[in-house]
Amino acid sequence: MDGEKFSVEAGKPILCKAAVARKPGEPLVIEEIIVAPPSHHEVRVRIICTSLCQSDVTFWKLKDLPAVFPRILGHEAIGVVESVGEDVDEVVEGDVVIPVFLPDCGDCADCKSKKSNLCSKLPFQVSPWMPRDKTSRFTNLKGEVLYHFLNVSSFSEYTVVDTAHIVKIDPSIPPSKACLLSCGVSTGVGAAWRTANVEAGSTVVIFGLGSIGLAVAEGARISGATKIIGVDVNQEKFEIAKKFGVTDFVNVGECGDKPVSQVINEMTGGGADYCFECVGLVSLMEQAYACCRKGWGKTIILGVEKPESRVSLPCADVLQSGKTLTGALFGGLKAKSDIPILLKRYMDKELELDKYVTHEINFKDINKAFDLLLEGKSLRCVIWMDKQASYSKGVCIS
Amino acid sequence: MDGEKFSVEAGKPILCKAAVARKPGEPLVIEEIIVAPPSHHEVRVRIICTSLCQSDVTFWKLKDLPAVFPRILGHEAIGVVESVGEDVDEVVEGDVVIPVFLPDCGDCADCKSKKSNLCSKLPFQVSPWMPRDKTSRFTNLKGEVLYHFLNVSSFSEYTVVDTAHIVKIDPSIPPSKACLLSCGVSTGVGAAWRTANVEAGSTVVIFGLGSIGLAVAEGARISGATKIIGVDVNQEKFEIAKKFGVTDFVNVGECGDKPVSQVINEMTGGGADYCFECVGLVSLMEQAYACCRKGWGKTIILGVEKPESRVSLPCADVLQSGKTLTGALFGGLKAKSDIPILLKRYMDKELELDKYVTHEINFKDINKAFDLLLEGKSLRCVIWMDKQASYSKGVCIS
Repeated sequence: MDGEKFSVEAGKPILCKAAVARKPGEPLVIEEIIVAPPSHHEVRVRIICTSLCQSDVTFWKLKDLPAVFPRILGHEAIGVVESVGEDVDEVVEGDVVIPVFLPDCGDCADCKSKKSNLCSKLPFQVSPWMPRDKTSRFTNLKGEVLYHFLNVSSFSEYTVVDTAHIVKIDPSIPPSKACLLSCGVSTGVGAAWRTANVEAGSTVVIFGLGSIGLAVAEGARISGATKIIGVDVNQEKFEIAKKFGVTDFVNVGECGDKPVSQVINEMTGGGADYCFECVGLVSLMEQAYACCRKGWGKTIILGVEKPESRVSLPCADVLQSGKTLTGALFGGLKAKSDIPILLKRYMDKELELDKYVTHEINFKDINKAFDLLLEGKSLRCVIWMDKQASYSKGVCIS
Repeated sequence: MDGEKFSVEAGKPILCKAAVARKPGEPLVIEEIIVAPPSHHEVRVRIICTSLCQSDVTFWKLKDLPAVFPRILGHEAIGVVESVGEDVDEVVEGDVVIPVFLPDCGDCADCKSKKSNLCSKLPFQVSPWMPRDKTSRFTNLKGEVLYHFLNVSSFSEYTVVDTAHIVKIDPSIPPSKACLLSCGVSTGVGAAWRTANVEAGSTVVIFGLGSIGLAVAEGARISGATKIIGVDVNQEKFEIAKKFGVTDFVNVGECGDKPVSQVINEMTGGGADYCFECVGLVSLMEQAYACCRKGWGKTIILGVEKPESRVSLPCADVLQSGKTLTGALFGGLKAKSDIPILLKRYMDKELELDKYVTHEINFKDINKAFDLLLEGKSLRCVIWMDKQASYSKGVCIS
C-alpha cells in the first residue's frame, strides 16, 4: 500500500472536539479531547454526521448506573476510517463505515448462525469502556478519562470503535440517510423484516408511534402488510404515521372502557398477525399479546421497560393459543450483512429514509437536537460535524 | 355403492356398552347406553381399542366445571366407521379412523394455513356436547343424557364423532400402536417436530418425564438432537427415559441451592436450544425460559397449569435475549395431514411406538387402567373393546 495514503495522525493521539455529557440532564459541553490511537481490532473514525436516538436521551437523563459521567454519548452515525489498529484487515483508512452498538464479530457460534444476532464473543452490554480491553480511548486536556457509550460515542469529531462494531458501506450513499441505519431505523425495519418476518397481506399492530414504531411501519409496508394499525395517545402522530405506511389508528385515550386489545381484536376480526410493542410498558406488552391472532400471532417486544420489570401472560393462552412472544435488539439484524442490504433497498427506492430527517444542525448546536426530541418535534435530527467536509478529510486538528 | 356393505344399524340407535364416569374420582361404571345415529358431518365409530391419557384422569377427578357428570371419557382411540351422517364424503363405512380431540375442518383460514392447527370454524373447547349442534348422542336406558368428552368419548363400544375430528388411516397398522397417535404421543412428538422444529445436533431440555415428556424426547431423537436432558423429581423415570432418547438427567431434588436453570446453563454452556415444559407449573415454565439459549432458544409450553395462572418473564430478557416463548395444543400438529406422516414413520421404523404400551387390558377392566396410571406404573395402558374382533365387525348388540 502507498504510505502517503495513511493519516498523518495514524498511531498518534488526535486532539479534537467532542460534546461531553458531564451531569445527568445538563446540556452537553463542547470540549477539546484527546482520542488515543486504535488498539488491536480497533479503528479510529472521523465522524461525518451523527443523529440523536432516544437511548442517548435516556442515558443522558439517567442519574444512576449504568449511567456514568463524564461520557461521550451518541451511537447513530457515519464516518470515515482515519486509521486502523493492529490485526485489522476488514477496512483501511478512507473507508466509509457505519458504527453499530451491537457487535458482529463474524467468528462466534451466534455470528455464524443465521438465527442469532447476539455475538457471544463480545456480548453486548451497556459498558463505559471499549469492549475488549475495558479501557477508554478518550481523555481531556487535564488527563480526565471520558467514558464510552454503546461502543460508539459518536458525539465527537473522532471516536474509536471495535471492528466488530463497524460496517463498511458504499460511499455513494448520502451520509445523512445512511447514518439512520446505525440504530433506530434499522431496529424498527429489522424487527418487521427479520424478527417477525412480516408476510405480504399481513395485519400489523404497532404500539407507540415514535421513531422505532414508525420504522416498524416502514418495514411492514415494504414487506407488503396490508393493514398497519398504529396505537398511540398522541393524535398528532397519526398524520405523520400515514407517511410511514400506517393505515389505521387507535387512540388509546378514546377506547373508553374497552381494553385496547379488545378494540384491535374487533377491528381485525380476531387479532393481528404481528404486534410490536415500541414503548416499553408491561401493560402494553400484555395488550399486544392479547390482540395478536391465535394460531400464528407473534408479539415482538422492542420497548425498554424498567430493569426489574416482568411481563406476565396467561398460561392457558400460552398453551392453547399458538401465539409467540419474542423480542429483539437491533431488530434481529446482523449488522455487517443486513445493513448493506437495507442500504441497497434505500438506493433502489424501496426503503424510504428521507422522511425521518426532520432537522439538520451543526455540531456546535447539538443541544438543540436534545430539545427537539424532548419536545416531540423531531424524528431524527442529523448533527453534522462539518457539512462541507463530508467524506473528504477535514482540517487536521493536532 | 353396494347397499349390503352398510351397517344394519345405520340410521338407527345402537345399544352398546360404555364405561360411564358418574361421580368425580369414583370408578367408571360399565352401563348399557344408546348411541344415536350420526347427524350431519358426523360418523358413528365402533371403537377397536382406546388408551388412557392423563387428561381423562384430570377430568375424572375434577369436581367443578368444566367437569360434568355423567360423562363418557376417553379420547385416545382407534375405530372403524360404522355409519356416516349426511354430508359426509371423507369416509365410508368400514374405514379405519383415529378420532382426535382437536378439530381440523380443512376449510377455515387456520386449517388452510400451514402456520396454525387451531381450527377457527369449530374452535376447540372442553365442551360436553357435539361440536356443531351442542347436543349429545348418548343416553342410557332411562333416557338420561350422558355427556361427551373432548369431541371423542372413546370409553364406549360405539361413539359419534364429527368429521373434523377423525383421521382416516391405513388399516394395516396395528391398532394398539396407531391409537397412541390420537393424543399423547402426537402431542409430544409434534411439539419437537412441528412446534419447535428441533434441528439435528440440537440440545433439548424436557421438564417432566411423563408420557408427553417422553414423546418430546422421542420427537427430538428422531429430529437428530444430540443432547436430550430430562428433568424430573423421580429418579426411577430416568432409566425409562433412556429408551426414549434422553441422554442426560437432572434430578431437581439434587440441585441443592442452585435453580435448575443454572444447573442446565452450566451443563449446556449457556442454555439449551429448545426447552419443553411438560408438567404445568409456572415455576418450571420460568426455569425453562431461563435456561434456553440466548439468540435462538425456544421455550415450548405443553403442561396445563391452573386456569387463572400466569407465567412471567423478565422484560429485559424478552427484549435482549432473542428467546421465544410459545406453546401448542396437540404439538402443533394438523391432525389429518400430520398423523398419516407419523404413522408412516412408525411403519418405516423411525418412530418407535411399541415402548409406550406398558399394559393391555379388556374393556371390562377399564378401572385398572386408572389405577396403573395413578400409581405411576403405566405409560400407556391399551384398553381393548374386543381384541378378537379387531377390525372385523363384532356381534351386533341391538
